[in-house]
Amino acid sequence: MTDDFERMWTDLTPVGRSAASGGYFRQPYRGAESELRSWFLEQATARGLRVESDPVGNVVAWWAPPGVSGPGVLTGSHLDSVLDGGAYDGPLGVVSALAAVDVLRSRGFVPAKPIGVSVFVEEEGSRFGLACLGSRLAAGVVPWRDALALTDRDGTSFEDALSSAGLGAGTYEPWDLAATVDCFVELHVEQGRDLVDRGAAVGVASEIWPHGRYRFDFTGAANHAGSTRMEDRQDPMLTYAMTALAANKQARLAGQRATFGRVEVAPNGTNAIPSRVTAWLDARCSTDAGLASLVEAISGQATDRADRDGTSLRVTAESVSASVAFDASMAARLAADHEGGDWPVIPTQAGHDAGILSAAGVPTAMLFVRNPTGVSHSPEEHASMPDCLVGVSALADTLERLAR
Amino acid sequence: MTDDFERMWTDLTPVGRSAASGGYFRQPYRGAESELRSWFLEQATARGLRVESDPVGNVVAWWAPPGVSGPGVLTGSHLDSVLDGGAYDGPLGVVSALAAVDVLRSRGFVPAKPIGVSVFVEEEGSRFGLACLGSRLAAGVVPWRDALALTDRDGTSFEDALSSAGLGAGTYEPWDLAATVDCFVELHVEQGRDLVDRGAAVGVASEIWPHGRYRFDFTGAANHAGSTRMEDRQDPMLTYAMTALAANKQARLAGQRATFGRVEVAPNGTNAIPSRVTAWLDARCSTDAGLASLVEAISGQATDRADRDGTSLRVTAESVSASVAFDASMAARLAADHEGGDWPVIPTQAGHDAGILSAAGVPTAMLFVRNPTGVSHSPEEHASMPDCLVGVSALADTLERLAR
Repeated sequence: MTDDFERMWTDLTPVGRSAASGGYFRQPYRGAESELRSWFLEQATARGLRVESDPVGNVVAWWAPPGVSGPGVLTGSHLDSVLDGGAYDGPLGVVSALAAVDVLRSRGFVPAKPIGVSVFVEEEGSRFGLACLGSRLAAGVVPWRDALALTDRDGTSFEDALSSAGLGAGTYEPWDLAATVDCFVELHVEQGRDLVDRGAAVGVASEIWPHGRYRFDFTGAANHAGSTRMEDRQDPMLTYAMTALAANKQARLAGQRATFGRVEVAPNGTNAIPSRVTAWLDARCSTDAGLASLVEAISGQATDRADRDGTSLRVTAESVSASVAFDASMAARLAADHEGGDWPVIPTQAGHDAGILSAAGVPTAMLFVRNPTGVSHSPEEHASMPDCLVGVSALADTLERLAR
Repeated sequence: MTDDFERMWTDLTPVGRSAASGGYFRQPYRGAESELRSWFLEQATARGLRVESDPVGNVVAWWAPPGVSGPGVLTGSHLDSVLDGGAYDGPLGVVSALAAVDVLRSRGFVPAKPIGVSVFVEEEGSRFGLACLGSRLAAGVVPWRDALALTDRDGTSFEDALSSAGLGAGTYEPWDLAATVDCFVELHVEQGRDLVDRGAAVGVASEIWPHGRYRFDFTGAANHAGSTRMEDRQDPMLTYAMTALAANKQARLAGQRATFGRVEVAPNGTNAIPSRVTAWLDARCSTDAGLASLVEAISGQATDRADRDGTSLRVTAESVSASVAFDASMAARLAADHEGGDWPVIPTQAGHDAGILSAAGVPTAMLFVRNPTGVSHSPEEHASMPDCLVGVSALADTLERLAR
């Protein structure tokens, strides 16, 4: 079984990896992600799993022994990555799910419910800007028309991207979750150091912090960088810079998270005062009210500064995910009664497809695998091979409890 | 004559203009700029001017009546623009030079020295990052090897760009300025409101402020924007943001100019703390010592902040141009004895090919044409048609004085 996981992991390692940074570029419907998708279909076929895919490329590979039907136990994650991301965020959950099926079969386990290995597309939102796009569509929480209107940074529409990938259709029907999914478990590399601090290789998620993405459009007036007196400027870069610092300070003060990680400047010339700076705020808090007041405080300071700079600001919430409390009794049941002791139950600040399904009413759990440095969304993201194998075993145990 | 200028101006208006912003995109060796170059060669040929061009595409169209030879009076400007720039910065000087030749011929003037209409490439440095690249090469102040090593934002080398444009050669020989150029006059739209304040349609330049471009590479550590505690971050965006504000404050205090107009972020994802932010400082001062101490002060504050943020900073001077004092007696001679009174003699904070030639020992002057708002490097850049025609007439008068 160990061999299975390692072989699969080795298959995936080179796909979409930048020789320069060692990070991964796996945006949906592009080369590397398409290659991973093909690889997944091969793996599913080789295991005799029945593959179902929907018009946006969400896939489930079902293991249903003869006579076993009805809503299944779904487990999986995603194959896309953030720009220059790590190897584990997403693929670890998919590979572990396939390996867990192998483990269960080797144990002679026969599930009483179908077990499905799932892959949702565009979990990171790295291409079309809306995280968990695939699971949101599947759960019916994003209207099809809104999804079609999304465009990537090159101006390619979601519709055209689907069409280029040989996917897409006139309409999209959300999944019938009640008829299909009994419960969902997503295994994921931890994006933090909670398990390191607790000395545990695996843990169970309690909740996801509420979080959102907000586009800040700062508009000023382009002018010559040399000949325009400082006092005659309407420079949106200054408004942005102050906003980035204010966001950091606000989040620090409140024990919350606020990040400006993406910025686009127009015309972006060295000797021109910008006409426009667009920046995206990623904000996360422990409560929905906290998130709202954090964003309000940052927006307020930004607007005040815009008044002083002679610039203007428009803030657009591109996506806001309310807090998700995973099924507490399910988490407690999964965490308890293990040989080495109970698994810790811990919160996460990162969004996941599991959060979307949970909010849509599916009993949902997450397993985390220890990350030695806590670093994620970076080439430095890591999990040790022994911990990954503990993760596979833990996921197999979990599926056994759920599909019994 | 009025017709000539207006017809030429109308020819150029649509070339490289963005339908969205109304601004111009005319980067060297690309479509729009190549079209302007072809247009210029046609205009020169139609006037019976003898065209000389060098391996990087600097062009002079000579008017030398029979028996007239020796170093000539050069006048012209450039045809490239900053990204999303205005219509006047560059082309106004070229079109006015051609129109001034027409005016002189209509006056029956026969020059005693050749008159050359010149176009230097990549004046703005919008593609290869080094402003006045064409005139620097012509004047021999940038080594050929250094120029070849330049790359644009897409990674295309200067050498490959030349080759794609059907230009380039194994080596480049700087011009023999002493044998070729007696003096140089560049007409340019004013990039400021000095002439507006003085109620004058044209003026003569006294000096160019020293100025430079400095690349600031801020390096931190990529990580997850949600799950990384604020106190565990090494976020180079914060260091950059503080530096942009510090630059503005320093320049304000000292009556100088400092601008961060260009920024590139890696990986530039909404949910990732950046690993790197690269930003370009454009700085200008009235004295060389002032420029050095301005950049030192900004770099010092940036380094202090980097220490606090756990990031690192490298500052690279990509180009630094010392102050240029134009030939004072030439400026005085050109400005004096006009019907409507003397033309004002004013400084500029913007770099120009005229500055490069002046520093290389060529007696050089600049004429400015009034800009109602002072706005430049922006779609809003403007000069009225009557003022442009005053400019043509003023340039013709100037050439008459210089080539007599």
